[in-house]
Amino acid sequence: MTTTPTAAPRPPQLAPPGLEGVAVAETEIGDVRGEEGFFHYRGYNAAELASLLSFEQVWHLLIEGELPDPQQLARFREHTSELRSVPEGIAPLLSQIAAGSEFVPLNALRTAVSLAADRLGLRPVLDIGPEEVREQALRMTALAPVLLMGLYRAHQGKPTVEPDPDLGYAAAYLQMLTGQRPLPAHARALEQYLILTMDHGFNASTFTARVITSTGADMGSALVGAIGALSGPLHGGAPSRALQTLDEIGSADRAYDYLRQKVEAGDRLMGFGHRVYKTDDPRSTLLRQVALEMGGEQAQFAQHVEQTALRVLNELKPGRRLYTNVEFYAGVVMNTAGIPREMFTPTFASSRTVGWTAAICEQAAHNRLIRPSAVYVGPTPPVPLPDGYTYG
Amino acid sequence: MTTTPTAAPRPPQLAPPGLEGVAVAETEIGDVRGEEGFFHYRGYNAAELASLLSFEQVWHLLIEGELPDPQQLARFREHTSELRSVPEGIAPLLSQIAAGSEFVPLNALRTAVSLAADRLGLRPVLDIGPEEVREQALRMTALAPVLLMGLYRAHQGKPTVEPDPDLGYAAAYLQMLTGQRPLPAHARALEQYLILTMDHGFNASTFTARVITSTGADMGSALVGAIGALSGPLHGGAPSRALQTLDEIGSADRAYDYLRQKVEAGDRLMGFGHRVYKTDDPRSTLLRQVALEMGGEQAQFAQHVEQTALRVLNELKPGRRLYTNVEFYAGVVMNTAGIPREMFTPTFASSRTVGWTAAICEQAAHNRLIRPSAVYVGPTPPVPLPDGYTYG
Repeated sequence: MTTTPTAAPRPPQLAPPGLEGVAVAETEIGDVRGEEGFFHYRGYNAAELASLLSFEQVWHLLIEGELPDPQQLARFREHTSELRSVPEGIAPLLSQIAAGSEFVPLNALRTAVSLAADRLGLRPVLDIGPEEVREQALRMTALAPVLLMGLYRAHQGKPTVEPDPDLGYAAAYLQMLTGQRPLPAHARALEQYLILTMDHGFNASTFTARVITSTGADMGSALVGAIGALSGPLHGGAPSRALQTLDEIGSADRAYDYLRQKVEAGDRLMGFGHRVYKTDDPRSTLLRQVALEMGGEQAQFAQHVEQTALRVLNELKPGRRLYTNVEFYAGVVMNTAGIPREMFTPTFASSRTVGWTAAICEQAAHNRLIRPSAVYVGPTPPVPLPDGYTYG
Repeated sequence: MTTTPTAAPRPPQLAPPGLEGVAVAETEIGDVRGEEGFFHYRGYNAAELASLLSFEQVWHLLIEGELPDPQQLARFREHTSELRSVPEGIAPLLSQIAAGSEFVPLNALRTAVSLAADRLGLRPVLDIGPEEVREQALRMTALAPVLLMGLYRAHQGKPTVEPDPDLGYAAAYLQMLTGQRPLPAHARALEQYLILTMDHGFNASTFTARVITSTGADMGSALVGAIGALSGPLHGGAPSRALQTLDEIGSADRAYDYLRQKVEAGDRLMGFGHRVYKTDDPRSTLLRQVALEMGGEQAQFAQHVEQTALRVLNELKPGRRLYTNVEFYAGVVMNTAGIPREMFTPTFASSRTVGWTAAICEQAAHNRLIRPSAVYVGPTPPVPLPDGYTYG
């Protein structure tokens, strides 16, 4: 029974920790250039897309590979609106999924997406063609906010609101949340946030979706994995924390002392600094403008806090290149648009579903199993069983 | 609004396709030495462990890092038996999760695990200590087959069978499936299969669990991602396919012609050849012995087909080093033990949960975000918007 290995094969080289800087794929979806404060979708400046175009136009760009012409766009709007219908048998289950003693929307969304993918009969991407994978991508992206709002309203004890087919993705998102047609300015502000967060290079959740897809699994499996990865505190994307800082500061005259004490205590300022951007985050630049255009005291106050924070960081951490990141104004924009804080991260998950599904389509079309290895560093095998150790 | 990037930073080097041979972590859990036909758990020959010890002894080894002494083992058996209890509110939902028109057990398990993790209130691993992560590892591994059998029996229209607290993991697995105490020989045969498949180096589902854990997410998120990855056709672990070959051959005298025609037609023989093993797969060696010891015509027939297949492969593909893999006898063992074919892969998922949770514990204890990059190969940014292209 016992095998006695002789010479071990040469162990693989250990990659840089966390695979940082290791490129595991070629992609045509987009990229982030942190030093330049620039990110793009299929070559187009993403901040410019968010500034000028609609959710559907950019969604089409990411999944279909090109901006739609007016006819394509009309068909795309109609088609994706139809794809919001909830699969049979799911609706009554949403309230039960949301019925836990503590409601964690991302967990509930993870369960609902898993269930919906099963009911839709999504087959392994390995067994279907690229057209069907793209169609599933649209289906799951259109469906995600409907599931999410169904869960949220069930948790609130409120009836489900059917999406209004006349509304685009962003406006319908708010309408399904509140039951009312949103103000156009609110829908547009949210739409800009959603476009800005559809994709952002090769983040951890997108990578997760690719790894799962690489086994040939179905799109539902890849999406539940991605939602799970997004829920991790290290993933980034928690705009509620920056908003909480604003609450704690309370009034403009308290900002400087509060922020200085925080930095002196060694605490991180939420909404500042980014792993990749070493200059202005292009998302924060646009979101600042969007927040200020929406009006309201909170945006003005946020701008005061931002300027104060940058002054404090410059005084106490000169040369550290800490700039405002996407989280700082994202919370202000979503809050002003009427989204409750516990739904901030799920809103991010909804828009990022566009990026995840684009990555799944690309991975499925050029697939190869992603299967790295590890270096074993434990006791040298074969370790003998302890003397007299028997079945028990 | 428009940013015009100038010189792009040096793109990262593209890693070998699929990260093959790239080591992304150090591990003390185990390793595979394909050239030697050897794999181990924490240094111990895994085939020897399966041959001599119980599921609980090896489970303890993988999670706690050492083989239990008799007192530790008694406590571990009692504790993990208690951890089989289904969280409140889940049981009535299992039948609804299983109620789709097509029952895909792994999909249903993915949904049920997501729901159970939520109900158990599993917090992000980043926010809890290693003791709590290990406790969750035991909880989810103990619970997985209870959920699975609840789903399966609900789909069959049968009532749930509570696990018998006097039975160990393997015997209770069969008892929850059939409602009857299994023959000791069947429980022991299944136990050996389960031990052999708890872990196997850095496979794609284990890597998925690590990537999700690296964001600091909760164990439920990592497990649903791993189940999703396991469901992919490229992951491996579909013993039903080898059994189907036996069915198609039907009788011993037809084996040679059938197999020769199959290989000549360029088809792959299910149950032969492995990505890593270039000699006897140590799992197939033990499972052959287990199958023959269980008795029955199928094992004898399978051995005849195996010998014939190896002869055919040697005649038609000399020097290709195609050996019997784990799948060939796994199906015979599970079938003889009374497991229906559609539950073969979910049975593999159940035992592999030990390896997944061991990997999650290790990743959480030495965490760093796993976030590789990609090389952008699309049109050079910034691509200008088409002339006159406006919001629509």
